[in-house]
Amino acid sequence: MNLRFDENGLIPVVLQHAKTKEVLTLAYMNEESYNKTLETKETWLYSRSRQELWHKGATSGNTQRVVSISADCDQDALVVAVLPNGPACHTGADSCFFEPILEGDGGPSVQAIAALEEVIKDRYASRPEGAYTTYLFEKGVDKIGKKIGEEATEVVIAAKNNDAEELSMEAADLIYHLLVMLQNQHVPFDEVLKILEQRAAK
Amino acid sequence: MNLRFDENGLIPVVLQHAKTKEVLTLAYMNEESYNKTLETKETWLYSRSRQELWHKGATSGNTQRVVSISADCDQDALVVAVLPNGPACHTGADSCFFEPILEGDGGPSVQAIAALEEVIKDRYASRPEGAYTTYLFEKGVDKIGKKIGEEATEVVIAAKNNDAEELSMEAADLIYHLLVMLQNQHVPFDEVLKILEQRAAK
Repeated sequence: MNLRFDENGLIPVVLQHAKTKEVLTLAYMNEESYNKTLETKETWLYSRSRQELWHKGATSGNTQRVVSISADCDQDALVVAVLPNGPACHTGADSCFFEPILEGDGGPSVQAIAALEEVIKDRYASRPEGAYTTYLFEKGVDKIGKKIGEEATEVVIAAKNNDAEELSMEAADLIYHLLVMLQNQHVPFDEVLKILEQRAAK
Repeated sequence: MNLRFDENGLIPVVLQHAKTKEVLTLAYMNEESYNKTLETKETWLYSRSRQELWHKGATSGNTQRVVSISADCDQDALVVAVLPNGPACHTGADSCFFEPILEGDGGPSVQAIAALEEVIKDRYASRPEGAYTTYLFEKGVDKIGKKIGEEATEVVIAAKNNDAEELSMEAADLIYHLLVMLQNQHVPFDEVLKILEQRAAK
């Protein structure tokens, strides 16, 4: 493929989280950083302000493992799907795109579950004080197990009452506590998704 | 917010599908197209090749309803989340980014849950003979409720046994039966996802 670098030798690159699909950063590569990225399977960029090759995360430790790269129809832009080892933004935000201009709602997406899983993973590592998820991790498997029993029972009661709103809430509670349990037991949610993928394919 | 348009008066724009989160197109806006986009809530761009204002989909009918807009940390790039009325790419592809350079696997995806939900919806409508899901729908809410209780208990037992493989299996079983219950009670999974989205945003 012949990539079309612009008059400054650069190509714009959309860095996207491979799992949550969140757009993390819009950045640029020159040919050297593009080749380095292919070679190392980590994100290498070209800093327009510093005018230099830039190994993303080299100083902060927030490198990004490159999972896939796609070019667009006229080969002058790239989407690079990455698994980040930390925040993509120099401000410490997960994504650089945190300044809302217009806030709207495209309707819910299953990506919400992936996003929640990330939050739970983060809570497990950082244990922020006062967070309910921290409390569950501190209490451990017995407490989380009790909550799963409780939420499952509440799902059944809401269903028996034909209470749609309550059923949605309790189903969300059950999924949340299930994700907490998986994290607590160090079982990647991916293992569950693999099984669900097989079932959906039947 | 003061957006930073470049020396040509342009700002790069990542067009992203608001539901699937797929990156559709990397394009550019000038100030006029940006204002038109805000005003009409449809995607307006600036065509660098034709050097003119460009109402996306005006000729093809593939307009895009704008759901949200975010700027990045240095206000020189936008992500515009859209609900497209058709393919984003002039080639007829949903996304312009269809040229694989590096194909990798980010691992299983939460899209598996959306796919399973579709299968369950289909089973509910068509009731194929001999399918376990058909059996559950025929038996109804009491049977599905019993299964939810059973699978929740099996999740707890697997966790207590530190059996990772069993825990993955039981967690998948629990999610599957929960989806069956929601379908049986005519509660859209979207309602659950809305609640999980709010939690992930906390």
